Amino acid sequence: MTLPQEAPVHATPRKPAPQHASLIVKGADRTGIVAAVGSVLSHHGANIVSLDQYSDNPQGGAFFQRTVFSLGHIKAELPSIEADLTGQLAKDFGLEFTLRDLSVPQRVAIFASKSDHCLLDLLWRHRNGQLPVTISMVISNHPDTAEEVRSFNIPFFHVPSSGPDKSAAEAEHLRLLQGNVDFIVLARYMQILSGDFIARTGVPIINIHHSFLPAFIGAGPYAKAKERGVKLIGATAHYVTEDLDEGPIIEQDVVRVTHADTTAELQRRGADVERAVLSRAVQWHSQDRVIRNGNHTIVFA
Amino acid sequence: MTLPQEAPVHATPRKPAPQHASLIVKGADRTGIVAAVGSVLSHHGANIVSLDQYSDNPQGGAFFQRTVFSLGHIKAELPSIEADLTGQLAKDFGLEFTLRDLSVPQRVAIFASKSDHCLLDLLWRHRNGQLPVTISMVISNHPDTAEEVRSFNIPFFHVPSSGPDKSAAEAEHLRLLQGNVDFIVLARYMQILSGDFIARTGVPIINIHHSFLPAFIGAGPYAKAKERGVKLIGATAHYVTEDLDEGPIIEQDVVRVTHADTTAELQRRGADVERAVLSRAVQWHSQDRVIRNGNHTIVFA
Amino acid sequence: MTLPQEAPVHATPRKPAPQHASLIVKGADRTGIVAAVGSVLSHHGANIVSLDQYSDNPQGGAFFQRTVFSLGHIKAELPSIEADLTGQLAKDFGLEFTLRDLSVPQRVAIFASKSDHCLLDLLWRHRNGQLPVTISMVISNHPDTAEEVRSFNIPFFHVPSSGPDKSAAEAEHLRLLQGNVDFIVLARYMQILSGDFIARTGVPIINIHHSFLPAFIGAGPYAKAKERGVKLIGATAHYVTEDLDEGPIIEQDVVRVTHADTTAELQRRGADVERAVLSRAVQWHSQDRVIRNGNHTIVFA
Amino acid sequence: MTLPQEAPVHATPRKPAPQHASLIVKGADRTGIVAAVGSVLSHHGANIVSLDQYSDNPQGGAFFQRTVFSLGHIKAELPSIEADLTGQLAKDFGLEFTLRDLSVPQRVAIFASKSDHCLLDLLWRHRNGQLPVTISMVISNHPDTAEEVRSFNIPFFHVPSSGPDKSAAEAEHLRLLQGNVDFIVLARYMQILSGDFIARTGVPIINIHHSFLPAFIGAGPYAKAKERGVKLIGATAHYVTEDLDEGPIIEQDVVRVTHADTTAELQRRGADVERAVLSRAVQWHSQDRVIRNGNHTIVFA
Repeated sequence: MTLPQEAPVHATPRKPAPQHASLIVKGADRTGIVAAVGSVLSHHGANIVSLDQYSDNPQGGAFFQRTVFSLGHIKAELPSIEADLTGQLAKDFGLEFTLRDLSVPQRVAIFASKSDHCLLDLLWRHRNGQLPVTISMVISNHPDTAEEVRSFNIPFFHVPSSGPDKSAAEAEHLRLLQGNVDFIVLARYMQILSGDFIARTGVPIINIHHSFLPAFIGAGPYAKAKERGVKLIGATAHYVTEDLDEGPIIEQDVVRVTHADTTAELQRRGADVERAVLSRAVQWHSQDRVIRNGNHTIVFA
Repeated sequence: MTLPQEAPVHATPRKPAPQHASLIVKGADRTGIVAAVGSVLSHHGANIVSLDQYSDNPQGGAFFQRTVFSLGHIKAELPSIEADLTGQLAKDFGLEFTLRDLSVPQRVAIFASKSDHCLLDLLWRHRNGQLPVTISMVISNHPDTAEEVRSFNIPFFHVPSSGPDKSAAEAEHLRLLQGNVDFIVLARYMQILSGDFIARTGVPIINIHHSFLPAFIGAGPYAKAKERGVKLIGATAHYVTEDLDEGPIIEQDVVRVTHADTTAELQRRGADVERAVLSRAVQWHSQDRVIRNGNHTIVFA
Repeated sequence: MTLPQEAPVHATPRKPAPQHASLIVKGADRTGIVAAVGSVLSHHGANIVSLDQYSDNPQGGAFFQRTVFSLGHIKAELPSIEADLTGQLAKDFGLEFTLRDLSVPQRVAIFASKSDHCLLDLLWRHRNGQLPVTISMVISNHPDTAEEVRSFNIPFFHVPSSGPDKSAAEAEHLRLLQGNVDFIVLARYMQILSGDFIARTGVPIINIHHSFLPAFIGAGPYAKAKERGVKLIGATAHYVTEDLDEGPIIEQDVVRVTHADTTAELQRRGADVERAVLSRAVQWHSQDRVIRNGNHTIVFA
Repeated sequence: MTLPQEAPVHATPRKPAPQHASLIVKGADRTGIVAAVGSVLSHHGANIVSLDQYSDNPQGGAFFQRTVFSLGHIKAELPSIEADLTGQLAKDFGLEFTLRDLSVPQRVAIFASKSDHCLLDLLWRHRNGQLPVTISMVISNHPDTAEEVRSFNIPFFHVPSSGPDKSAAEAEHLRLLQGNVDFIVLARYMQILSGDFIARTGVPIINIHHSFLPAFIGAGPYAKAKERGVKLIGATAHYVTEDLDEGPIIEQDVVRVTHADTTAELQRRGADVERAVLSRAVQWHSQDRVIRNGNHTIVFA
């Protein structure tokens, strides 16, 4: 007897969505925003597929909205929708907005070092259609994962980076990235980026920190966790800012540990949390589900 | 030294919200619904505080929306908002809607038996302002919890119910409930309700089942869980229908157990899950966050 | 139809265990300890009900063992078992051990302030037979919970403690506690204990801190969590030392939150985690499942 | 600046442990077993590294014990330890025991179909030293994963299996497995094994079922879960018996879902749970941490 075959997992991708666009709106909350957005989209015949909004204070707070809508010939229609939204939202309400064609995947560069668990998990999920992005390249300061990365048909660049002066390596990074990526993912990349580099890339950078921030900032968090005797260990995906491990948090998770787990075992168990947390953050970011608000994020997961 | 006092937990209630109303919309999805809702509310000067929507299929599926809005003098304004919505939503779009003044708490009757963990948790959360309801009465087939319930200033009625014929007890229940409650919570009430009773109450009934449904339907789920050797046990809050343990699921959760846990220990650990799951379900229901759709629920938690 | 009645939850207590004793062994690991313990107990006809051990390094590390055994007339037999263990473990192996008759519940004092969620949860669990302790008294710096505590037939003492000088209050605490308790639980007690007080009580003190330590040490952790934008909040039960929030951690847990949760909502959701974490810590401590090792704990849960 | 490098994750393997052995003891509980085991091991100079035991009823129940001990020249010593244990445990106490040199990894065959998430996760963990086994071969009824498996230097055999008669395929399986494996893992293998095949392999078979058993037995569990409207979905690793999905459960876990998740999305989220649950089960089995007891398991995790 054969089990009636379900489609294998990769048959049901979260692919870039044809004929769908996302609209992100930010600004001061006031009466009538929903009506205005709804009326522009309705006027163009677009169907609202999902709509999430959040106001941090209904009396004069900040307003955040994510709308996904579908429409035939969306590529042709977006410019006139954008013009109408500019009139209604930007001029009348003083709101910022971004409109993005979801059929065009964002381009991402992944930075990695020796540990491959986060990197491979992203590559697997991408191959299975779970990440609606184009992985433009993998950059590493170690050559170890070159062969594996290339077996996924993704370019691998080895950029060594030892010693205190990172300027040569960062110049090489910028040369590779320039014009080629929409965001960067640090998949357990064990080098600290300079403020200058962060500013010059000009795109969001997502990092996975191997602790439940703000606990155990900086290097060696699993050793610190063992030393403190915590009963849960965690991982944190956040946007990179100049302040190490202080950027806006996108996602966190934890796993239970015991007194019997060595630092090495914490590291191993933590690796499972790291890859899960990072993949969720990358997925959400690539679907415009994460909105930055100062040092916070609004996540419409 | 004294720690700077945070307010105690009960100082920050999820009370009935003054000057807020909820609008639930259901029907066939089509273009323009959001614009129509937004325009009616905006026309009345109402500010949309939160908006969630879900369509089970953007191409001609069913559409569900929950909107909370605030407005001064809301009680006076609701009738004319309702009239406008009837015009826009019911007539033009063929949608159903319900509008409810959130400053008026829903009235609930809690049914219990001997176990008090779910009952006490609801009473305690209610006292601390976490449940925006009026608990009209507690009905039990055992007198054991009478004194405790009354210490919360809530009426307690003992309605014995033994033997196979429940008709006398159910008649008494109906007499007590008639006109007095908006929904019913079975907080580990160990009697099966007749289909006739369910029909005649005419209000939603929420039950907590002490297993992760659909596993372990019926009586004695912890003993069955022990027998099967599961590694997690759970609890399920659902609306009651005539089909035992088959009604629409509102919320579920689980806790890890081991081979060493006896049935009694499963029961004890499960009790913690039961009270947590039931209190979430009651809170969500009382805030109009749960929409029934056939045998499913849409939960805008 | 009546559901076959399961026993209500409180029918299956984790009561003090008649004819059972616990043996905790600590010291330098070496060959033969298990055999020695086993042979003493076997010689007295005791049956080993459970045995857990942990060595932080099999080559010359520290060794920790918890054994529970049963034996008829255990009270009469314990002195001679103790004498034999002294010979075998203390003299031959240089190990420390403690032997305790589990039929004698430990006596605990609970300190509380205005928030009642942790306090009530302990009182409920105690009444239902889940905590094998005698609650000797509740001490609070606020009178608010007096009536509720006394309805559980437990003495309540109001000891006001305002202003920077806590010496009068602490003297009163010591007078009440002296000779009456085996350990102390701070159930959201919002006063800092002086080092002198901690030393003079001479018994373990368990505190619940309302954050996932070491994140958010000190006052106002929920406000700090909101400020940092974390996606999980937690609670930590730990032994109190002179260093605020730095003592050995017994248990921790977390719950997921979102950008939409206000500080008040974090506080409310955190309260559920706090009471769960504290009750587990108290239960484990009262069953001798927690062994302190410097600033760490070994928990044989 | 360079972060002080932690060792990458794969530097800290859970490798086969040199000079360590496991001893599993099963039988009727009675006084003196611990002393007997301890005395034999101590007599041979072995150091007990960990010891777990469980008795399902201290008065005459079944007793299960897992001991790991270390000893120089363990390979040479095991036969005489075995002889002594036979005398002490088998003859005197009527207990069964198994003794296994943990430096010799168990040999496993993995069966897979089209979905690769469970398969790849096992291969990756094995390469990183997290699974103390030798993966002897991968057998699949589809050729899709051949290249990827072989890139891990592991033999891949394609054995087609279509139509109702599986006897030819099963004969081929038995020819490949005979003498080559100590246990089998079904990593989302979508064919049902015949009772005859199960009997003739003569080794334990671990399956991952894509639901929280006993809910949703049989094919298409994610579609069934969607239909029932559950709020959590799960996965179950269990030993295979002739009764489909009824064998002893080793491990289970769940993940939260909502009304908005399609069946395809449930499948995708469930895949993450499946690979986590299966890898834990395989790791525990390969370290002799799982003891079968009728249709239950004792797991000393």
